Amino acid sequence: MNSTKYDVVGIGNAIVDVIAQTDYEFLTKHDLTKGSMALVDEAQAQLIYNAMGPAMEISGGSAANTIAGIASLGGCGAYIGKVKADQLGDVFRHDIRAGGVAFDTAPATEGPQTARSFILVTPDAQRTMNTYLGACVNLTPEDVDPEVIAGSSVTYLEGYLWDPPLAKEAFRKAMNIAHDSGRKVALTLSDSFCVDRFRDEFLDLAENAVDILFANDDEICSLYQVETFDEALQHVRQHCEIAALTRSEHGSVVISGEEVHIIEAQPVERLEDATGAGDLYAAGFLHGHTHGQDLATCGRWGSIAASEVISHIGARPQTPLRELIASTSGGAV
Amino acid sequence: MNSTKYDVVGIGNAIVDVIAQTDYEFLTKHDLTKGSMALVDEAQAQLIYNAMGPAMEISGGSAANTIAGIASLGGCGAYIGKVKADQLGDVFRHDIRAGGVAFDTAPATEGPQTARSFILVTPDAQRTMNTYLGACVNLTPEDVDPEVIAGSSVTYLEGYLWDPPLAKEAFRKAMNIAHDSGRKVALTLSDSFCVDRFRDEFLDLAENAVDILFANDDEICSLYQVETFDEALQHVRQHCEIAALTRSEHGSVVISGEEVHIIEAQPVERLEDATGAGDLYAAGFLHGHTHGQDLATCGRWGSIAASEVISHIGARPQTPLRELIASTSGGAV
Repeated sequence: MNSTKYDVVGIGNAIVDVIAQTDYEFLTKHDLTKGSMALVDEAQAQLIYNAMGPAMEISGGSAANTIAGIASLGGCGAYIGKVKADQLGDVFRHDIRAGGVAFDTAPATEGPQTARSFILVTPDAQRTMNTYLGACVNLTPEDVDPEVIAGSSVTYLEGYLWDPPLAKEAFRKAMNIAHDSGRKVALTLSDSFCVDRFRDEFLDLAENAVDILFANDDEICSLYQVETFDEALQHVRQHCEIAALTRSEHGSVVISGEEVHIIEAQPVERLEDATGAGDLYAAGFLHGHTHGQDLATCGRWGSIAASEVISHIGARPQTPLRELIASTSGGAV
Repeated sequence: MNSTKYDVVGIGNAIVDVIAQTDYEFLTKHDLTKGSMALVDEAQAQLIYNAMGPAMEISGGSAANTIAGIASLGGCGAYIGKVKADQLGDVFRHDIRAGGVAFDTAPATEGPQTARSFILVTPDAQRTMNTYLGACVNLTPEDVDPEVIAGSSVTYLEGYLWDPPLAKEAFRKAMNIAHDSGRKVALTLSDSFCVDRFRDEFLDLAENAVDILFANDDEICSLYQVETFDEALQHVRQHCEIAALTRSEHGSVVISGEEVHIIEAQPVERLEDATGAGDLYAAGFLHGHTHGQDLATCGRWGSIAASEVISHIGARPQTPLRELIASTSGGAV
């Protein structure tokens, strides 16, 4: 095994979030499913943007948020994802690097613009995402640096990567290198509609390739096409070495063979914007896991990291998570 | 006099703010004067951006913030300012239009990029701004639509406009049209260093051309080169029809000939980011003034509008100010 350079390398769609608060009527009028991620083409993106209120731009992207969390926790993180060489691409690159993440994927010099997700936050703090993939379609296996993957304890992949066709190949290449190097592979299922689009492939991954699976209750029920969380739990424990299943305010369940932990949600003073909750849960969990913590502690760190990001607008941490973990859990990070 | 189409038209530097929280050491290290606005060239902008932590992008620009406030208060606002036809220019245009402001200045198709202000927010919630003027240098008198100026009760100009050379001519053109149309001209002094750069011209404006002057205590003391706020007050009352002078947590003073009002600051639960406080004070004040309110009420509305914008990151209102005024002051807007 190579020496470990990174705790976690994330691969995902590199996206700048365009976030506006809205009312429920906006979702109804534009036929948007609250809480989901819908893919939109350039024309649809423009329509939604034109209809949205004043917004703010904050770097996002599911795996990118997780790796920003890893860095904020004091871990070593690397990220692979494709922006274009444009203003929003500069914003994305600045933000992830400024957070302490290694990010060296070459930007696209032609083709579509840097990806944007138009995020509507309703008064219940739920987020509804409309993602224009833009330059993400240009992520290819050549962007996956074997040395980075082989030098990372965990390779973390987002299910969303299955939407841009070539990214799927990048995903598989990274997975193979990680396993060949004796490393772990983690996957987040990302979104229940995404699971619908790729159920058979995701089932195959969960059963045969993924060591650590992250999912929320909708996603895991969708994966196994079952009605209840408990049924899904009985399935997933047969397959993945570890599954960490998030349930919003009901906390999370971590299961690994015979071992199971029920983790409470970390209370928040004010729930502002749920965007990034799952991403930051994964960050806290993986940071614990790559620092020798037991599964219960990993789950608690996940809850604490998630609690920070849902307390403000935007899916990247705004306070150093390392300090938050130290003050909240009493645990050394 | 033409029929009134707009309550207030603002002319200013059209800027996207790039905002990051930072510590005091960052300011010292980069030789930045806390609370001020410094102009930076492209190379300096890149240096500061590279050194800054992860940021968020929110449309800004002093007069643009004021006009966004006018719209949020339920008034009719128009804005004139120059962006480039690039991604951040699109962001600026979207945000101000989505807030309900008429904004029809043609974007530049060549030359420097849309302006950015790199804003460092320290733990005391004070903001230190480093502004790269970019496309703002391409605002010219041709961008001033005489019909818009003649159709606006108040033309509101920012002192910052004196930095890009051609914008000064646009400023003078607008001022002349406003006066020729029997309208009022309002000016904000913007920044004490800006006053230093253009003191003689600003003094001439204050004495001979401006009907409503906005300034904070540093700026008004700088204008008259006096030590105390009270000395400045004795000067300014000789010149402007109305002066509205803000003093942060000490509230504001509104003076017009013999009439003087001491307005308390509106208390805030948590001071988060002072960016835009003066801009939104001007919005509340001018909205009152263009809706027949007495000067004391204008000042109170200014304080209420300012209190909203300093309660969160970013210089544009995030809650409808019309509702805030109604619930806080009990006054009909």
